[in-house]
Amino acid sequence: MFRSIEWLGDRVRWINTLKLPWEEEFIETTDPERVALAVERMEIRGAPAIGVAAALAVALAAARSTTASLEELRHSLLRVIERMRRTRPTAVNLFWALKRMEAVVSAEYRDPGELREAVVREALRVYDEDVGVNRRMAEIGSKLIDDGDTVLTHCNAGALATVALGTALGVIRAAWESGKRIKVVATETRPMLQGARLTVWELMKEGIPVKLIADTAVGYVMSRGLVSKVIVGADRIVMPGYVINKVGTYTIAVLADRHGVPFYVAAPTSTIDFDGRVEDVVIEERSPDEVRTVLSRLYVTVPTVEVLNPAFDVTPPGLVTAIITEQGVVSKPVEVGLRELRERRPRRELAP
Amino acid sequence: MFRSIEWLGDRVRWINTLKLPWEEEFIETTDPERVALAVERMEIRGAPAIGVAAALAVALAAARSTTASLEELRHSLLRVIERMRRTRPTAVNLFWALKRMEAVVSAEYRDPGELREAVVREALRVYDEDVGVNRRMAEIGSKLIDDGDTVLTHCNAGALATVALGTALGVIRAAWESGKRIKVVATETRPMLQGARLTVWELMKEGIPVKLIADTAVGYVMSRGLVSKVIVGADRIVMPGYVINKVGTYTIAVLADRHGVPFYVAAPTSTIDFDGRVEDVVIEERSPDEVRTVLSRLYVTVPTVEVLNPAFDVTPPGLVTAIITEQGVVSKPVEVGLRELRERRPRRELAP
Repeated sequence: MFRSIEWLGDRVRWINTLKLPWEEEFIETTDPERVALAVERMEIRGAPAIGVAAALAVALAAARSTTASLEELRHSLLRVIERMRRTRPTAVNLFWALKRMEAVVSAEYRDPGELREAVVREALRVYDEDVGVNRRMAEIGSKLIDDGDTVLTHCNAGALATVALGTALGVIRAAWESGKRIKVVATETRPMLQGARLTVWELMKEGIPVKLIADTAVGYVMSRGLVSKVIVGADRIVMPGYVINKVGTYTIAVLADRHGVPFYVAAPTSTIDFDGRVEDVVIEERSPDEVRTVLSRLYVTVPTVEVLNPAFDVTPPGLVTAIITEQGVVSKPVEVGLRELRERRPRRELAP
Repeated sequence: MFRSIEWLGDRVRWINTLKLPWEEEFIETTDPERVALAVERMEIRGAPAIGVAAALAVALAAARSTTASLEELRHSLLRVIERMRRTRPTAVNLFWALKRMEAVVSAEYRDPGELREAVVREALRVYDEDVGVNRRMAEIGSKLIDDGDTVLTHCNAGALATVALGTALGVIRAAWESGKRIKVVATETRPMLQGARLTVWELMKEGIPVKLIADTAVGYVMSRGLVSKVIVGADRIVMPGYVINKVGTYTIAVLADRHGVPFYVAAPTSTIDFDGRVEDVVIEERSPDEVRTVLSRLYVTVPTVEVLNPAFDVTPPGLVTAIITEQGVVSKPVEVGLRELRERRPRRELAP
């Protein structure tokens, strides 16, 4: 099973998704700051992968620390947590993973060695859970996909957005492996082209039929009846069911609604921000050069033009047919099922 | 006044829009086949510009012919007309202009010289009318734009899509020149990036404030209330008001409708196909490499991926607030006003 990010005992290794599909470049580091840069630059991207990367950055800091002072170690780990928190503002898995790491760092220990071990153990738990959660989501979600479906997906919610398998692509993979003859329509997803570069690359590697379209062609394929289902990932889900995901998702949801096409979101419960309000979510605005260029390789406009480059948009609950989580399918109206999930939350997640 | 295409007595000269904004390259030719290639490759693009180019290609064939046989000349001109008809299937101005040229070619003449003169004269009439028609549309349409508006436009319906001024951008230009403080949001318009390359280039040249967005960000700007009007061009309008325009237009119209943003179409009456049916319109499907690459300069995906690349989509009449023509504004419900326009048609256009 392909893993986009790995823990090698004293180092973290990831595939640089910015170089795909042109080169398969892997980066290994012992330096937590290098992991922070990888998240900021989007070498590592996708809400679940970002959460795992953040946990592993804290583990790296623990593993390489040589201090004999428990307080010094704790202080340096908290600084890494603070640094990782500032990498990207929108995906909630980042804050969820860092909250878990912070709870472990803040517990009582006899010596630095014990704290180091606890931190590495918790990071690996976050890592392993991601694989297991995606596997369960894939199983659960694949039942919603029918033989003969053409499924549209946006951006990349695949193995390259998680540790392995993926959220939306995990569901598609499981449906395909169960023998359903499905096809995928992938939007290219400007400005960073995660659909064209990553989703196409992942699906072609596995022989799953995929057709690429420009983002402008979503209305066309919907109006011609060429898509029977939509499935996307999420960077944050806010009560009572607002889905914050890659910019362009809202447009797809509006068109799916107009044309009676079910709109599914595959997201682990770590993506659900049970306590936040949609008005408070910061939609990250990224560099104008992402739009002015194609991955810094080629200018496609007058280089001095002003740009508006929001990385995400917000799809309201009324447009969401169902949310696929590792704990089950939250069906329309999603408000009700999400409230039930909130009440079932394990106590750990209720901690401040 | 900048002219994207010109008649130089025995040659046609145009700006190669494929090279913008990187280079300002002009091409001059005496060869009608070279004009056909320019339209197919989209060096010359935009429905009105394509119509004018087709007329000028026929004029070129007449101007360079040395035959003493009237029938031979007529035959060679009809072959050029046939050739131009096969360049692109969707924009109706092409067929409209070629029908005018064919009527002139088919009339009675004493000698080849007289036919030559008549053909060149008609082509220049098509050319001059385009400038005049855009000027009238700009005047009429600019009254719909208010001081303080932020106007979203898609693709390029500017001077680079016509002989001069443009349709949608002609309206924006006229509003700006009349002193209204407006801003423009331009979508980049993948796959050919006419928004990023051409619309931004045109507007920045004139100092009209413009912000570029990825096509994926249309839903975001609409949902945040950052756009007060939409204005686009059209490649063909079919009764009772279907607007066939650059792929992505339908998506914008659906979002504008949802958010209460007026959706205007600026198009000369030569764009209106009064007799066709929407079911019969051929939506051109272009090369997969347009989506696999950025203007053949850079692959952005696995080079062997399958692609669906429709060049246009269809916006139904119910989503259109008004159509701005050189004969006046056709307001919602556009069905009624279009029927009136049809009845007012000059007799020439009623010919088979």
